Amino acid sequence: MSVAADMEVMARKAKEASRAMAAASGAAKDAFLARLAELLETRREGVLAANAADLEKARAAGLDAPRLDRLTLTPAVMDGMAKACREIIALPDPVGAIESMRPRPNGLLVGRMRVPLGVICMIYESRPNVTIDAAILCLKAGNAVILKGGSEALASNLALAGLLREALETSDLPADAAQLVPTADRAAVAALCKLDELIDVMIPRGGEGLIRAVVSQATMPVLKHYKGVCHAYIDSGADEARAETIVVNAKAQRPGVCNALECLLVHADAAPTFLPRIGDALRRAGVTMRACPRAQPLLGEGAGPAAPEDFGHEFHDLILAVKVVDSLNEALTHIHRYGSGHTEVILTENHDRAMDFLRRADASMVGVNCSTRFNDGGELGLGAEIGISTSKLHSYGPMGLVELTSAKFVVLGQGQVRG
Amino acid sequence: MSVAADMEVMARKAKEASRAMAAASGAAKDAFLARLAELLETRREGVLAANAADLEKARAAGLDAPRLDRLTLTPAVMDGMAKACREIIALPDPVGAIESMRPRPNGLLVGRMRVPLGVICMIYESRPNVTIDAAILCLKAGNAVILKGGSEALASNLALAGLLREALETSDLPADAAQLVPTADRAAVAALCKLDELIDVMIPRGGEGLIRAVVSQATMPVLKHYKGVCHAYIDSGADEARAETIVVNAKAQRPGVCNALECLLVHADAAPTFLPRIGDALRRAGVTMRACPRAQPLLGEGAGPAAPEDFGHEFHDLILAVKVVDSLNEALTHIHRYGSGHTEVILTENHDRAMDFLRRADASMVGVNCSTRFNDGGELGLGAEIGISTSKLHSYGPMGLVELTSAKFVVLGQGQVRG
Repeated sequence: MSVAADMEVMARKAKEASRAMAAASGAAKDAFLARLAELLETRREGVLAANAADLEKARAAGLDAPRLDRLTLTPAVMDGMAKACREIIALPDPVGAIESMRPRPNGLLVGRMRVPLGVICMIYESRPNVTIDAAILCLKAGNAVILKGGSEALASNLALAGLLREALETSDLPADAAQLVPTADRAAVAALCKLDELIDVMIPRGGEGLIRAVVSQATMPVLKHYKGVCHAYIDSGADEARAETIVVNAKAQRPGVCNALECLLVHADAAPTFLPRIGDALRRAGVTMRACPRAQPLLGEGAGPAAPEDFGHEFHDLILAVKVVDSLNEALTHIHRYGSGHTEVILTENHDRAMDFLRRADASMVGVNCSTRFNDGGELGLGAEIGISTSKLHSYGPMGLVELTSAKFVVLGQGQVRG
Repeated sequence: MSVAADMEVMARKAKEASRAMAAASGAAKDAFLARLAELLETRREGVLAANAADLEKARAAGLDAPRLDRLTLTPAVMDGMAKACREIIALPDPVGAIESMRPRPNGLLVGRMRVPLGVICMIYESRPNVTIDAAILCLKAGNAVILKGGSEALASNLALAGLLREALETSDLPADAAQLVPTADRAAVAALCKLDELIDVMIPRGGEGLIRAVVSQATMPVLKHYKGVCHAYIDSGADEARAETIVVNAKAQRPGVCNALECLLVHADAAPTFLPRIGDALRRAGVTMRACPRAQPLLGEGAGPAAPEDFGHEFHDLILAVKVVDSLNEALTHIHRYGSGHTEVILTENHDRAMDFLRRADASMVGVNCSTRFNDGGELGLGAEIGISTSKLHSYGPMGLVELTSAKFVVLGQGQVRG
């Protein structure tokens, strides 16, 4: 059978399983999660052995150290997966909640009930713990999930998918609610992208190349973010001590993540005092600066000139672009030209400008006087997240359990007809 | 310049205009709507003359009567467009609303603020009043809109787009917030479908062929529905008089629309009494029935045998498929196999089965003891609607003003950083 035919069979089974998942009680889903946590603790030898085989192959193929690191499962990583299961048990079941129920003039009661999306297809790169972390969120939200991991993690992912299947079966839920694509064949992704009658949404997680490939091929909706080019704007009259703390935190606390700061915009009035101060602080934190001609001399040593391509760039490193602007409007124009719709913050003491920025900055999270690093499902109060969406359709920002559901209209009548 | 290059220029202007629209006050948007209503009343001669030219060409090209009818603008249709503008003035501005604002343990206040989607591209077929009806909803929700109508309505649409532009300009809003694609070239749609960096969402409205063409080409999200194959399930013990009224209303009140009933499912216990009764009533309403072997003899004359393809079919006519089932489960299995995720209703006196159906039927509207015809933005309390989505991503069911927006996270801090 061809890969395309295999994928269609898999998607049909997922659709079928999604009906049972949608009707499953919160208790049944939580029992599954508890069972899976147990299996991740008591049956880890098989998973670790499969992972060792993946690692051996990857080393032979010459994978670089960071990718080997991401591929590696340890007892601690497996404990983390078990812990994630238990954390999700603690989150309320979103399915079946009715958000409002209001009467219409004719007596109909109209509300919206949370329902699962149906079948979610996750496509991700090497980190094998995503197999569990993504599956458990999709399943608690009442969906079926098709998992397509990286080829270098295939043995590890198959072992983890075996535990998912076993935990579903022993909890009286359909085993086909979590299926792993058992091949490294790239044709599998192309085939999945065409099954829009069976798969409700694709969620690619990984590099920009992977995400663009899915977006260009998929005929169903795609929840995605390409990158995080996050800005902080230092307003005229900002509290400079506070701004320093926030900028250093946003840039240096964890520079490799998507909500790290990539570009600092400073109002011309604040530049003469704030830039020397932040230049020192960033230097101490090991940050290299790439600055516009007005900012560079004020930042002191460690600040080189910015090339045009440094604006709008996600450095993923201890590097920061810096630019002086003459107004809030100029800052917003820069953000709308170079930002990626991820996270934008203003540091200000002025209420009107705070509100203006809050309304006009176009990003999934807009903050006042806080670090960009708060754009995260846990920090914003969603519990676990499956990723951060930077497109505005369906979900904008971190996606937790509720974002893995939809809402249908429910209408309770007593014989009403339309006149 | 090529059509593709023209479309990119248009989309860039739309993106630029979308920034000003997103920041516009509700008062400015309502002033625009009031001005447009005036223009639709005082400047109708130009539009009607353009429409006469379209009609002459269409007659010469041999368009059939229903399509000529849809293409025709009359003073009454233009009054309807002006009235639509004023109805939308009366709806609250969704943009800037913050749905909740809750403190996190670290003192951050976290909420979600309604924001426009950005640039919406509407692709629709012959009816030229869609140019106004769609544009005003998109604009009141703070978006910019690109309009691509049917080639046979090009002159009419250009005239209407001229009024949109004039009303925007005289209200200090950017004229490029509503642009009509000024060509009948089909390459325009293909080019628009690739501009995912500039256009946030495509909304195709028309036949299934048009919608599938957009879905297969678009690299941005598409809000759509293919068809409405709506079912009513008559439970054992249903109130037969009430069920008769509802079934006749759902099928016969306006059979050509997507929320009309297409298939009646009757529990075997109810069949011996209900089928003869509904057979009579439907016959009196001019409805032809296509029935399964168990139902046909009970329905009386006017009921022929159903072919397999009659189930899952959208008749758009006074024709109804009828089938006897042995349980609620069998009804749901039939609905999930043949339904289109549009509208499903149960007619029952039993509370548990009503709740079971409400939870498990998979459709954008699920009703108890009411007509399928209520799946409509006006009837469900949304005000005007731009269409009904049958896919669960972003919006499920009628899409009104709020569904033409997204929600971003807003975070108010006092210096918080991540630890």
